[in-house]
Amino acid sequence: MAEVLRNYQRIIVFTEGQANSGFAKTAISLLRYRQEHVTAVLDSSVAGKRCQEVFGAGGETPICGSLDEIPPADALFIGIAPAGGKLPIEWRPAIAGCLRRGIDIVSGLHEFVSEDPEFAELAQRHDVRIIDIRKNGHSRVAGGVAFRRSNLRIHTVGQDCSVGKMVSAIEIDRELKRRGHDSSFVATGQTGIMIDGAGIPVDAVVADFISGAIESQVVAEQHHDFVLIEGQGSLAHPSFSGVTLGLLHGCAPQGLVMCYAPARKAVLGLPHAQLVPLIRLVELYERIASVRAAAKVIGIAINSHGLSESEAAHECVRVSESLQLPACDVYRDGAGVLVDAVLSYRDEILQ
Amino acid sequence: MAEVLRNYQRIIVFTEGQANSGFAKTAISLLRYRQEHVTAVLDSSVAGKRCQEVFGAGGETPICGSLDEIPPADALFIGIAPAGGKLPIEWRPAIAGCLRRGIDIVSGLHEFVSEDPEFAELAQRHDVRIIDIRKNGHSRVAGGVAFRRSNLRIHTVGQDCSVGKMVSAIEIDRELKRRGHDSSFVATGQTGIMIDGAGIPVDAVVADFISGAIESQVVAEQHHDFVLIEGQGSLAHPSFSGVTLGLLHGCAPQGLVMCYAPARKAVLGLPHAQLVPLIRLVELYERIASVRAAAKVIGIAINSHGLSESEAAHECVRVSESLQLPACDVYRDGAGVLVDAVLSYRDEILQ
Repeated sequence: MAEVLRNYQRIIVFTEGQANSGFAKTAISLLRYRQEHVTAVLDSSVAGKRCQEVFGAGGETPICGSLDEIPPADALFIGIAPAGGKLPIEWRPAIAGCLRRGIDIVSGLHEFVSEDPEFAELAQRHDVRIIDIRKNGHSRVAGGVAFRRSNLRIHTVGQDCSVGKMVSAIEIDRELKRRGHDSSFVATGQTGIMIDGAGIPVDAVVADFISGAIESQVVAEQHHDFVLIEGQGSLAHPSFSGVTLGLLHGCAPQGLVMCYAPARKAVLGLPHAQLVPLIRLVELYERIASVRAAAKVIGIAINSHGLSESEAAHECVRVSESLQLPACDVYRDGAGVLVDAVLSYRDEILQ
Repeated sequence: MAEVLRNYQRIIVFTEGQANSGFAKTAISLLRYRQEHVTAVLDSSVAGKRCQEVFGAGGETPICGSLDEIPPADALFIGIAPAGGKLPIEWRPAIAGCLRRGIDIVSGLHEFVSEDPEFAELAQRHDVRIIDIRKNGHSRVAGGVAFRRSNLRIHTVGQDCSVGKMVSAIEIDRELKRRGHDSSFVATGQTGIMIDGAGIPVDAVVADFISGAIESQVVAEQHHDFVLIEGQGSLAHPSFSGVTLGLLHGCAPQGLVMCYAPARKAVLGLPHAQLVPLIRLVELYERIASVRAAAKVIGIAINSHGLSESEAAHECVRVSESLQLPACDVYRDGAGVLVDAVLSYRDEILQ
């Protein structure tokens, strides 16, 4: 799958009607990290605008209102990630239209596009591919292996879904590379896999094999000095904590980066569910990680969505003092502060 | 599925070569709880013996060495539960032989017998059923619902796999009923489902839907005064903690019963992995449960396998004093002590 996903260079990102729904994080991240490969967004509800204005990323990339307007393309990437991962019926004509035009489909939904009889038949007839990112056959039970001692595994964890766990892992990995270090990013969600071309769709693995799937992937990456493993969900999320813990124990990180969005008032999508305070979460993550291998939260990544620049800067100082940990606004300022923390942690534990 | 599984009254339990492997817990529990429906065990390695001698349950039920010797039967239940759930190749002739004889197959393996081309073809030709207990289509995300206030949910949790979480839940449920209470047992594993006829094969659910699957089942059972939810794995198990936590948060129990086997020296199947001390586990379970809903460990269930009767009695006293909790040997003495604990906990929290 890796080569195929990386080789798409004329991508249409599909967000039909959901550009401003809060579920378009896949689209936003594709525009942020693969802007040079995205030729247009397809969404009739915001057609004619430019991506930067609508998504806060993607610059002048156009937004088209119908398939007839899109530039030449080799793949349609489904750019939203609704909880539950069902395919809305109103998207069917666009998917069918792409297949008829010879455009591949890349989907991260739980409902597999490739197993839909109509789409499967169209794909065959027009000789195009449907890639379901979440479709997997992972069936290895984790062995609780001892990873290579001098491999430092950093795992991004969070207070909630959609708080910047993937972005933080990517930014730390890139900054480490920029400084000349040997680092690798392991994607664990559909968006990360669409960006990186490879990874483990951990929330779609059969429950018994969550830890085994990520353990195998980390074994394959442990020759690097640093491995940055994208986190999923939250230990405190009422829907997804099983994914979070299976992933945490499977990759057995020595260091954790805690991600949160200060403007968030309740669990995303569950307004009745309160967020658990960061200080309690830091302790909870460290404590439950330690039954597999000792781990320490070494820094805080702030997603300042909804805050002004000065509010974000103020929050950085506040949280850093309150938790006695380095903190930075990864979206506005990059991950420099966190990379400093990773490097000094490495010196501390890997003498 | 429920009616079908319950209606089998002439069951052959298959353990070929694994009777003494430590993986035959499904067989042992079927002999314990459905002895009246088990007509024979099929296992050439212990053929000619009686079940009580080999499995410590099942009384005079015979063990046959080949299909030609088995009494008339309506289903073959696969009686072992290997980690990973693969179908050993040496079992194929017996499964095919049953299908040819018009005997249904009931399997709890991760590898689906019904999707094997040879077996699927045989089943169709001989008009018999293959029931894969773990095959499921659960695709509902948990909503973190508020359950009915006067429904008391008791969840059995453990220090490891195979320490008596299912048996403890069944025994507490049965003792509550015996005392005239309105109670229900929710099976969450293959063996519990084979015994009860229904339940959620939670370790085979797609990761994102672990909590949602069990939440839905508890919603359907919350009209009862008591719901006993079978636990899976352990928060401290290097392979399966994701299943354990998704289940814990999905059923949001008020009370937990901690199960352990004192003779166990390390994590089952992972001799390099240390068991986490009970006192640390009690705190860990309560703490992580509380991010969804407050829960308290109210009793300890001892699986005294490998201990003498006096050693077991001594361990009961020791652990009860050390943790300041009621404890009993569920296998030898039943769950009376734990039911007392459940009832006084009910009086304490549901005034």
